[in-house]
Amino acid sequence: MNAVCLTSGGLDSTTCMAIAKKEGRRIYALSILYGQRHHHEISASKRVASYFKAEEHLIMEAGLGKIGGSSLTDLSRSIPTTSILKEMDKGPSRPEPSSIPSTYVPARNLIFLSLAVAWAEAIHAGEIFIGVNALDYSGYPDCRPAFLEMFQKTAKIATKAGLIDGWDIRIRAPLLHMTKAEIIRTGLSLGVDYGITSSCYQPDTQGRPCGRCHSCQLRLKGFKEAGVPDPLIYQDT
Amino acid sequence: MNAVCLTSGGLDSTTCMAIAKKEGRRIYALSILYGQRHHHEISASKRVASYFKAEEHLIMEAGLGKIGGSSLTDLSRSIPTTSILKEMDKGPSRPEPSSIPSTYVPARNLIFLSLAVAWAEAIHAGEIFIGVNALDYSGYPDCRPAFLEMFQKTAKIATKAGLIDGWDIRIRAPLLHMTKAEIIRTGLSLGVDYGITSSCYQPDTQGRPCGRCHSCQLRLKGFKEAGVPDPLIYQDT
Repeated sequence: MNAVCLTSGGLDSTTCMAIAKKEGRRIYALSILYGQRHHHEISASKRVASYFKAEEHLIMEAGLGKIGGSSLTDLSRSIPTTSILKEMDKGPSRPEPSSIPSTYVPARNLIFLSLAVAWAEAIHAGEIFIGVNALDYSGYPDCRPAFLEMFQKTAKIATKAGLIDGWDIRIRAPLLHMTKAEIIRTGLSLGVDYGITSSCYQPDTQGRPCGRCHSCQLRLKGFKEAGVPDPLIYQDT
Repeated sequence: MNAVCLTSGGLDSTTCMAIAKKEGRRIYALSILYGQRHHHEISASKRVASYFKAEEHLIMEAGLGKIGGSSLTDLSRSIPTTSILKEMDKGPSRPEPSSIPSTYVPARNLIFLSLAVAWAEAIHAGEIFIGVNALDYSGYPDCRPAFLEMFQKTAKIATKAGLIDGWDIRIRAPLLHMTKAEIIRTGLSLGVDYGITSSCYQPDTQGRPCGRCHSCQLRLKGFKEAGVPDPLIYQDT
């Protein structure tokens, strides 16, 4: 079966692609250029798509940079480096919605999934894999199960294939209920080389992660809890 | 109230914008460059946004041309010019789903609306206007009321504003149940100059419409039934 796999070249989407590969899917890797600061995401996603022998790797543009509203796309805003872990240790394992950080990009997963649906329909893919996670995550609303379920229904009735051929596109989010440590252990058991991935919101010119942004914090916490070293070399090491 | 108005510079979206203006909305015009053949859509949408004194006109990119699957984005495929009107005269006023033409662009309105939601959230708009029409239309699945209703629910739970602030984005489709003739009469009563619009899928280099593609056929039928002349000058006249 063909599967569209959204990839950012990061830890989660790479593990997600490894799962799709293990399930025997033909991988159609999709990266979205959305005006993010981190164009190195694209380099990492190229390495990952090649690693998993994707049938095709499509890099699509979506000009979200023009919209603003996020520190990930607006260069005049700084990336937060306050501890996200303290917040997460407080109570349930995820932060309150009120703490959704400035790295939130308006409607990002809604847009990413919509573009994935378009490609999925064109290549007759039965599944879209997305590496969202509702546990060790940054509190983004479009990473929640309720959103994914409703999006799947919407996608079916939005398309010609869904309307006529009974095409039943499935949104697969296998990491949804995993901790970062579980994600890493799963990936390692499937042979993922995390040295080719990139998670940082603000790496240096050599691509070395900062170790301080929320994405780095979550990644480092995951490797620590999994009891394995992160193969990446950080800026201040 | 701020409103994002999707605009293609065509007859429907222009009438839709006139309705938003009449309702006192502050217009944020949004055009999507999706690899369509007709870049003149953008010129027309600029004229229309200016005509209605939009606060801003944003032109966003969405690289659907890379996906293919449609004669509108794939230059190797020809635009159909068979009569769509015969089909429409047969039974109920819309064609069977099986006759969805090759101009269908996979998941187009799903993507357009998702991009509109992102902008709407960033500028705190309460409404998104889209000029879809379920009556005199080409049979596209993403023009149906069921799709619009489910999309609105999905958008609410996909966004930070929807989750936290109770932001209730409304998808407005005021043309949904109008015939083309009714749309034209409505627009004329609101002072629309249809001479600045452009509907054709394959205009010539001077921007003159072909008069044969489905979009031209529907437009000409509408003006005929409304009993007023189309101010545009067609190629073969």
